Amino acid sequence: MALSEFDIIEQYFAPLGDFKGPYTRLGPGDDCAVITPPAGEQLCVSTDTFIEGIHFPQEVDPAIVAQRSLAAALSDLAAMGSKPVGVTGAITLPGVAPAWLSAFSQTLKACLARWQSPLIGGNISQGRVLSITWTVLGSVPFEEFISRCGASAGADIYVSGWPGRAGLALAQRLNGETATKTLAPHYEAPQPRLELGQNLRGIASAMIDVSDGLLADLQHLLDASGLGAELDLATLSFDTILAEAATSEVAARRVTLTAGDDYELCFTADSEHRAAIGRLADVLALPLTRIGKTQTQAGIRFLNRPEDLSVDELSSQQGYQHFV
Amino acid sequence: MALSEFDIIEQYFAPLGDFKGPYTRLGPGDDCAVITPPAGEQLCVSTDTFIEGIHFPQEVDPAIVAQRSLAAALSDLAAMGSKPVGVTGAITLPGVAPAWLSAFSQTLKACLARWQSPLIGGNISQGRVLSITWTVLGSVPFEEFISRCGASAGADIYVSGWPGRAGLALAQRLNGETATKTLAPHYEAPQPRLELGQNLRGIASAMIDVSDGLLADLQHLLDASGLGAELDLATLSFDTILAEAATSEVAARRVTLTAGDDYELCFTADSEHRAAIGRLADVLALPLTRIGKTQTQAGIRFLNRPEDLSVDELSSQQGYQHFV
Repeated sequence: MALSEFDIIEQYFAPLGDFKGPYTRLGPGDDCAVITPPAGEQLCVSTDTFIEGIHFPQEVDPAIVAQRSLAAALSDLAAMGSKPVGVTGAITLPGVAPAWLSAFSQTLKACLARWQSPLIGGNISQGRVLSITWTVLGSVPFEEFISRCGASAGADIYVSGWPGRAGLALAQRLNGETATKTLAPHYEAPQPRLELGQNLRGIASAMIDVSDGLLADLQHLLDASGLGAELDLATLSFDTILAEAATSEVAARRVTLTAGDDYELCFTADSEHRAAIGRLADVLALPLTRIGKTQTQAGIRFLNRPEDLSVDELSSQQGYQHFV
Repeated sequence: MALSEFDIIEQYFAPLGDFKGPYTRLGPGDDCAVITPPAGEQLCVSTDTFIEGIHFPQEVDPAIVAQRSLAAALSDLAAMGSKPVGVTGAITLPGVAPAWLSAFSQTLKACLARWQSPLIGGNISQGRVLSITWTVLGSVPFEEFISRCGASAGADIYVSGWPGRAGLALAQRLNGETATKTLAPHYEAPQPRLELGQNLRGIASAMIDVSDGLLADLQHLLDASGLGAELDLATLSFDTILAEAATSEVAARRVTLTAGDDYELCFTADSEHRAAIGRLADVLALPLTRIGKTQTQAGIRFLNRPEDLSVDELSSQQGYQHFV
């Protein structure tokens, strides 16, 4: 028997409202959700869309769709230094597959609780193509949000985690190979760097999440701040697991610089904060790698560039763009 | 030449950010927008999706798509008694048609300004099917929001405006007829009842916007409040323009009770507020029609039902449902 929109919400999505968090006054089920924002704080808001066949491969495991899409959306809150308050989800389904809905909603439920992000509303529609649009709301102490435009020349540039691992795992999947075991979770179950983002308030002068690729997103940050940069590519060779799994050193460096699938954070900080950033990396058990410095001269220059990786290739790698 | 995602945003959507309103600290272009909510108020949040071929006919005028979708989304803010603070839009485009984008974005710009709703963020994706997901944020004085569940037995039930006019205009379009001149604007350019909603704070005990049809949405309100109702269908005969345009009295009543295209508000209020509601109708130049009373007995009963409109038919008219 066909399930109605209301049946689907009741059976699969209503249970996701169990986790309410401290700010939800009225959850799903009315014309609007109502939240009571933390007094005196500002709210960060971002909307992201994920379409099957464009933002994720067709017929991928629903648990991966759930975790990757929500992580990517919450990553924008992390990049502002904010803390999740609530999320809404708009889901378009090409049909009703109970097994798909069950796996998708169970993973979502676990992620919403783990990332302390209450689902406060949304809708389900039937359409020809599977897609999910998340809108995420986060709170941040008054005027302490970290935008892209706060960097000044001579600041250190950092990237978190292991950029490139998710991209390489995806490439292996798309080639029909089994993804390297240590790399696969970076693609299948990425973690938004929420704790890192919040801990960088007062330390990072500018920040962006890596969704289009490290070079492309760093360029967005530099454009917003009116700067250029010098990057030392030797600093990225710390990831020996990535180096072993890649077909060559050049291939490893390429995926680190251009893949946008990890949702790591890229940020700038004055050199006085190096010790604090080192301690934060230890506490979070997360590499925070200093990869270069901002400069007044526009553009990005490279130190220790592998010979086979041309400047032209790097300059053209501006990450994924629709419609081109 | 193909336009990139960034080109489209720059050319058609960036100008929509010109209107910022009093609460936008950081508009589109960073990882998140940042808003400074009015001190001590609560925030209402709602997400709605509009898909071509499902929520609006294919190849309809882009100005109609823009105005109808945004009005429907903001109608949820109106139904809580809240005031718009900001909106985000996620738009999936099957291709790049400059004429379409130009008409769509110009109408949007006018609507955003008219309804005092700053566009604070969003995204553009390429996909096979045109769709728009709006997330709307509104503010409301602390604990003064109007939910669906606040009605008690013996309250008056009201509906605003001219329910059915948009539905009849749509039916005429779908039949290949020219829509009746007085009805067409109700379908093509619906107005969210924001001013009415805000003025009903302290007056309405429960409220819902009519998006699935008057009967279906009133039933949602009654379910949430644990009540039934008695409706006097003769109260709806005030709309002589609708009666003239419809093929029969029964047809007029049917479209009034079951079409969900007007985005009017349906609300309950204690009888002590009748004079205040009458004054509000005069000030807003908007009919606020008292159509019945809530009752403790579940279900909806009808007075002055046209003989050809059976109770069975009315009971089965629960508005549009996906997946059925």
